[in-house]
Amino acid sequence: MSAMQVYSEAQLRSFAEKVFRKIGCSNEDAIQAADVLICADLRGIDSHGVARLSGYVRLHEAERVRTKPDMRVVHETPSTATLDADEALGLVSGPYAMKIAMEKARNVGSGWVAVENSNHFGIAAYHAMMALEEDMIGIAMTNASPLVAPTHSIERMLGTNPMCFAWPAKGHAPFVADLATAAAANGKLEIAQRTGKKIPDTWVQGRNGEVSSDPNELKKGGSLLTLGSTVDNGSHKGYALSAVVDLFSGVLSGANFGPWVPPFVSFLPVQPDLPGKGLGHFFGVLRVDAFRPKEDYFKSMEQWINRFQKAERKDPGVPVIIPGEPEAALQTDRKVNGIPLVEAVVKDLEGLAGKFGLSL
Amino acid sequence: MSAMQVYSEAQLRSFAEKVFRKIGCSNEDAIQAADVLICADLRGIDSHGVARLSGYVRLHEAERVRTKPDMRVVHETPSTATLDADEALGLVSGPYAMKIAMEKARNVGSGWVAVENSNHFGIAAYHAMMALEEDMIGIAMTNASPLVAPTHSIERMLGTNPMCFAWPAKGHAPFVADLATAAAANGKLEIAQRTGKKIPDTWVQGRNGEVSSDPNELKKGGSLLTLGSTVDNGSHKGYALSAVVDLFSGVLSGANFGPWVPPFVSFLPVQPDLPGKGLGHFFGVLRVDAFRPKEDYFKSMEQWINRFQKAERKDPGVPVIIPGEPEAALQTDRKVNGIPLVEAVVKDLEGLAGKFGLSL
Repeated sequence: MSAMQVYSEAQLRSFAEKVFRKIGCSNEDAIQAADVLICADLRGIDSHGVARLSGYVRLHEAERVRTKPDMRVVHETPSTATLDADEALGLVSGPYAMKIAMEKARNVGSGWVAVENSNHFGIAAYHAMMALEEDMIGIAMTNASPLVAPTHSIERMLGTNPMCFAWPAKGHAPFVADLATAAAANGKLEIAQRTGKKIPDTWVQGRNGEVSSDPNELKKGGSLLTLGSTVDNGSHKGYALSAVVDLFSGVLSGANFGPWVPPFVSFLPVQPDLPGKGLGHFFGVLRVDAFRPKEDYFKSMEQWINRFQKAERKDPGVPVIIPGEPEAALQTDRKVNGIPLVEAVVKDLEGLAGKFGLSL
Repeated sequence: MSAMQVYSEAQLRSFAEKVFRKIGCSNEDAIQAADVLICADLRGIDSHGVARLSGYVRLHEAERVRTKPDMRVVHETPSTATLDADEALGLVSGPYAMKIAMEKARNVGSGWVAVENSNHFGIAAYHAMMALEEDMIGIAMTNASPLVAPTHSIERMLGTNPMCFAWPAKGHAPFVADLATAAAANGKLEIAQRTGKKIPDTWVQGRNGEVSSDPNELKKGGSLLTLGSTVDNGSHKGYALSAVVDLFSGVLSGANFGPWVPPFVSFLPVQPDLPGKGLGHFFGVLRVDAFRPKEDYFKSMEQWINRFQKAERKDPGVPVIIPGEPEAALQTDRKVNGIPLVEAVVKDLEGLAGKFGLSL
């Protein structure tokens, strides 16, 4: 493992805000975009934090992101809306759409917003968790750069297409399930690449569908496998879930879908003859008191968490985890003790500092 | 494989309706309940069709199902509702709840109904697909008898907790993803038991978490594994998805959840000190034209399906499948050529015929 350098939350936040202002974001949008990245770093989703900052800058340089977007609701009912994000950063359009969904939930119990013409939105959990502050359930999903092959295919047709469900809880960290519908997220391959380790032979396949434990297989034309990995173990379920995320994010919104989703990395070209506009997201919000009195809901939720924490362990030393619990613990820790960054990310940020005349 | 006997759809439908009337269902409810079972048999989900008929009868005999239920909406907003199913058959309360969700979607764009105090609802796809007739997206999920262990646990804490998403399409079978969040549904184990075959060692674990390929492991105190099967392959994702289904179906509705969900088999007792009422479901409906003009949606959906059907194959002889396509093809076939039943199911139905003085 390479050496780590530790930065305070405030230091990285301030730096990210400055970079977003440098590429033309309003002060408000820069604060918002930085907040999504810092949230990922605090929660330990290091692949989606400031490590991506230079990627967003490159997308802007490739003229695939508009930093002064004119976002507009183009279709609407009392509980639904479709937002044209005008090529905004997903880090900005995501929270904007969630606010619309929350407003609708306040009014009619639930709110559902599909977003077209957007870009990579960071971690899904940031958006879904916005609902928690008002005792609402938050849902967020997005399609993404095509890297994943459907069952029986060797073509990259889907992104790692995450879905996140955030549930409010009292006296305990909220339940937050944020999962890529691929067997393993790309970030895990990157870690194996850095450390020179092999990966389980159920994460990727070679260009012709060969079994592979090479973390560099994607660079050679291979593809990620869906959750389930093999037909025997339910890869068709992972494919179906990934497809559902694509339908909500792309087909329902008017964005691109499947292999046409514009890649996050700016060096890969956008496909010709696109069927839609940009990349798509989908957000949902449900008020818990649109179903039950709040106190009843919170009592059941507490019972659920307590009971699952006490589930009989396979290994006495390894507890059963409540989704979102480890990330919440890390967030508490990193707010105090800082955010460790690997050397490659520090170099990347120093590059941005040099480019924009900033100090890290 | 044991010999199969083939019955016409009409024959099995009429028989199932009669049985439901015999246990006290109104004519309307008997027709509805039978329709859910026959739909499963037509679509090839044989474990959830008339094979379950005697199970519902036994639940009624154990006084755990009310065949003249007084179902009531106990909480409501313009886009949401909670239904107390009064111990109805889930085969009856499910469609009832979906109709409420569809009515709300007609009015405000989407509708979401949580159901408490219910029973096993058959296949999730039946309910979700009700929305398709009106160009709406249908979602259905339910919690179920605890058989599945969370990651790092050896205790049966969750059901196979299915989720279904049904998307309307024109000129093609609808996209219907109906999946248990366990690595394999219980029905697959039953097939292996009947044929005396081993199962992949990633479906179940032994009582102490041992790796096992014994299809009878559940009878010896073992548990089903979640989708992903192992930590390396993302079993925590399957656990998280199963938990989300449980939260929607149980915690949000006021039904039981986790290990307290009443078992479908009448010979297993209901737990003491239940935290909720009966078993729970959750249904959602979204009008496609609450997001985009219908013709735009259907054009994108057609493009999606056509493109995925053409995805590069791993094996030239094995096509990439659109979720719901094989089931739709089987439905067309079985409507004409009849429904094959294994000997054990035929005997089961003959037993019911004898009990109620009916002929099969």
